[in-house]
Amino acid sequence: MDARVIKRLEEIVGRENVLTSIENKITYSYDATPSLASLPEAIVIPRTTEDISQILKLANEENFGVVPRGSGTGLSGGAVPLPNTIILLMNRWRKIIEIDTENLTALVEPGVITAQLHQEVERKGLFYPPDPGSMTISTIGGNVAENAGGLRGLKYGVTKNYVLGLEVVLPTGEILNIGGKNVKDVAGYNLKDVLIGSEGTLAVFTKILLKLIPKPQSSRTMLAFFDSIKTAGKTVSDIIANHITPATLEFLDNVTIKCVEDYAHLGLPTNVGALLLIEVDGHPAQVDEEARKIEEICRKNNATDLKVANSETEAMNLKTARRSAFAALARVKPTTILEDATVPRSFVPEMVEKIQEIANKYQIIIGNFGHAGDGNLHPTALTDERDKEEMKRVEQAFEEIFDFALKLGGTITGEHGVGLAKRRFLEKQYNEAGIEFMRKIKRALDPNGVLNPGKIFDLINPRCEGRLPLSREEIEKYKDLWV
Amino acid sequence: MDARVIKRLEEIVGRENVLTSIENKITYSYDATPSLASLPEAIVIPRTTEDISQILKLANEENFGVVPRGSGTGLSGGAVPLPNTIILLMNRWRKIIEIDTENLTALVEPGVITAQLHQEVERKGLFYPPDPGSMTISTIGGNVAENAGGLRGLKYGVTKNYVLGLEVVLPTGEILNIGGKNVKDVAGYNLKDVLIGSEGTLAVFTKILLKLIPKPQSSRTMLAFFDSIKTAGKTVSDIIANHITPATLEFLDNVTIKCVEDYAHLGLPTNVGALLLIEVDGHPAQVDEEARKIEEICRKNNATDLKVANSETEAMNLKTARRSAFAALARVKPTTILEDATVPRSFVPEMVEKIQEIANKYQIIIGNFGHAGDGNLHPTALTDERDKEEMKRVEQAFEEIFDFALKLGGTITGEHGVGLAKRRFLEKQYNEAGIEFMRKIKRALDPNGVLNPGKIFDLINPRCEGRLPLSREEIEKYKDLWV
Repeated sequence: MDARVIKRLEEIVGRENVLTSIENKITYSYDATPSLASLPEAIVIPRTTEDISQILKLANEENFGVVPRGSGTGLSGGAVPLPNTIILLMNRWRKIIEIDTENLTALVEPGVITAQLHQEVERKGLFYPPDPGSMTISTIGGNVAENAGGLRGLKYGVTKNYVLGLEVVLPTGEILNIGGKNVKDVAGYNLKDVLIGSEGTLAVFTKILLKLIPKPQSSRTMLAFFDSIKTAGKTVSDIIANHITPATLEFLDNVTIKCVEDYAHLGLPTNVGALLLIEVDGHPAQVDEEARKIEEICRKNNATDLKVANSETEAMNLKTARRSAFAALARVKPTTILEDATVPRSFVPEMVEKIQEIANKYQIIIGNFGHAGDGNLHPTALTDERDKEEMKRVEQAFEEIFDFALKLGGTITGEHGVGLAKRRFLEKQYNEAGIEFMRKIKRALDPNGVLNPGKIFDLINPRCEGRLPLSREEIEKYKDLWV
Repeated sequence: MDARVIKRLEEIVGRENVLTSIENKITYSYDATPSLASLPEAIVIPRTTEDISQILKLANEENFGVVPRGSGTGLSGGAVPLPNTIILLMNRWRKIIEIDTENLTALVEPGVITAQLHQEVERKGLFYPPDPGSMTISTIGGNVAENAGGLRGLKYGVTKNYVLGLEVVLPTGEILNIGGKNVKDVAGYNLKDVLIGSEGTLAVFTKILLKLIPKPQSSRTMLAFFDSIKTAGKTVSDIIANHITPATLEFLDNVTIKCVEDYAHLGLPTNVGALLLIEVDGHPAQVDEEARKIEEICRKNNATDLKVANSETEAMNLKTARRSAFAALARVKPTTILEDATVPRSFVPEMVEKIQEIANKYQIIIGNFGHAGDGNLHPTALTDERDKEEMKRVEQAFEEIFDFALKLGGTITGEHGVGLAKRRFLEKQYNEAGIEFMRKIKRALDPNGVLNPGKIFDLINPRCEGRLPLSREEIEKYKDLWV
């Protein structure tokens, strides 16, 4: 990038807010997605909405890309810069501007940490349900950009169900306010929901107005163990068929249970086929009744053991089994590829079985866990990106996994987005009319393709065509330059 | 319209499915919106998705507009044809294709009547919450096109919260499937939610996949009477502040109560300032507790009377007061203009007071009722469209009402859409960047502007510019031609 352009960026945000050292470039060359990295031209820290507007106008003038970034916990490479882009670092926008206890809303800046918002609103007896796996690090802005899900999706929905309003900067620099504290608003097209989940390609969020709900009065957490995934899956179906909607209904397969026990020493039995983490919440009488029914259903499906938490601490311990699944799996081998193939709930047992079959076929290790209640699975390949031959098998396996999910009416991504990692699969899910619909929206709003170029799909004239992102390995080379 | 084009339409759908008699044209010249009407060139009844695709391709070729229509219950003129358009009549697409009790979904054709779907799913112990005022006549397709709300919006949300998937025909004739039975799906842009609430301007729906939930186990209905709107409003705030989320929380002002009593003879006291219809639902213990708390809150706020339903029949009777509000008001004068200005819940008392002040200022009758729980009001002017001078005052009054709603952070439309009736107000709610965002989406998807032209906003080159729709009065003249 031309020194002149860097200078103009410095004029907009102040010199101290444009980082160009190689250390900084390396730090922001990747996100939580394995095997993808590329150096940005600079890291720019905007101070105001107006700053962002000017940066985007400059990007259109000077022909460079802008990659918005929160905490970089994304798992599809959405915050990985491509060549000729700058990182727009939003994680210092950390203010909770207002919690309105009358209208049950929270107005926040995009850099607020998800778990911090949970704490703040719960202190007022309110509740913000979306709880993505990375919630202790992830930002609300990132959650909105990816339409993040989480463990409570089955009962409470995902991020988009809680966004009431947005202040955004559009790719060409215009500032726009959408929505507000109204529960109902049908004035014009639903611009808000076009931007939610657009993975940083259509707008930069500068303020986010969230819907809150009253905090559930009580909850009960249970852990049930089963001989096989099949009986665990049958249990899930029976719970739903009994018209119980648990707040959380998660599963871990045997591979994952073993890794978790090895990592966290929770006293889990390692010889079981699967475990279910179940949490019901609401009115105490309802919780009692539902918990009793669930116990009955678990027993009927031959649960080998059932632990019910009798206190908040015990509940936290039971949840640790699930919350530490990713970290536990990630310890086993150098590279952890966590995916989010999702199927209609009734197909969960079939899908889980198929994933194991595919893992065996390609002789790779895939741990499986996820949101059984909403069909959102997290098949996780444990591998080593330096082993090119194994990596190839991993890729083939995931291709088959996605194909099978689509065959069952599923989706290639339930939570993580398409980003760079799943671009080539999107065309399996949508026909040409669908992809072209998306391209039309992108081209109409971002004619020069400056916002997060190269993500989700290729435009006909992609900004960065030909130059693929570097591998993590290639990036390592730059470390020699690191003091 | 050229006889040649009519002939080509007949070739697509069969001669019996193209109606061109003056009787038919008059029948389809208006919807439920007062004072707006215009004759279509023809009424076309498609038999298949492929038919619709071909009709839209022909429209692009031959340069005419296509206005999708369900039951025509819309209140913003969305189904009123403009000159050089045909009506695409979808109300014969009435099949409930599947109710999936495992994944809790219903797949329906767009012409299914909302209340009929309610009955069918409730028979299976399931629940489809959206319940717009016109639900006994309105179609699901129309509900999706308008993102219809209803009485249960506060607790259960609106139509868009229950649409999981769509089969649509795009304006240029391509057929597209979006979404599916997955609770979570973030593959690519959220095309589904762009189309929901797009008022027939971006797509024709041919199949709709809806999310269902378990039917609430029990419910309790109450009617509380207050001296003034202010104390009723305070009661609403107190209920929410006590972290109770009623399924229904509706109000009627004195004008409306009098009309309802006069119409339905329910034994309502006509000397009260306002009534609240409150329904809580869920687990019986929760319902008991919440009902008790609400009674307490009503008493504390000096409710003059409180009726609690002791049976399903009694509950239906209490609900009749609210459900018949529109019909009761409509009897008073020849023209009833029902609007849907919406404000954040905490501003409901202020807004209601202002509406009365405005009504007095312009010396018109405005009955007021609506969804107090979600801030969605229905100020309803009782007037006579033949009285031009009064109609002018009505218009001025509504302009002030919308201005005040926007000042409070509200919206010009909570449920009814923009259509033709509120086009000129949309620019008060969105800045130029917002309107241009909408236009860009429209132009990108519908370059020739064939789908429901002239609705929501003007394109730079609107198809029908210059020719305003006829008044209902002008349409009456055509009746002489009617045999």
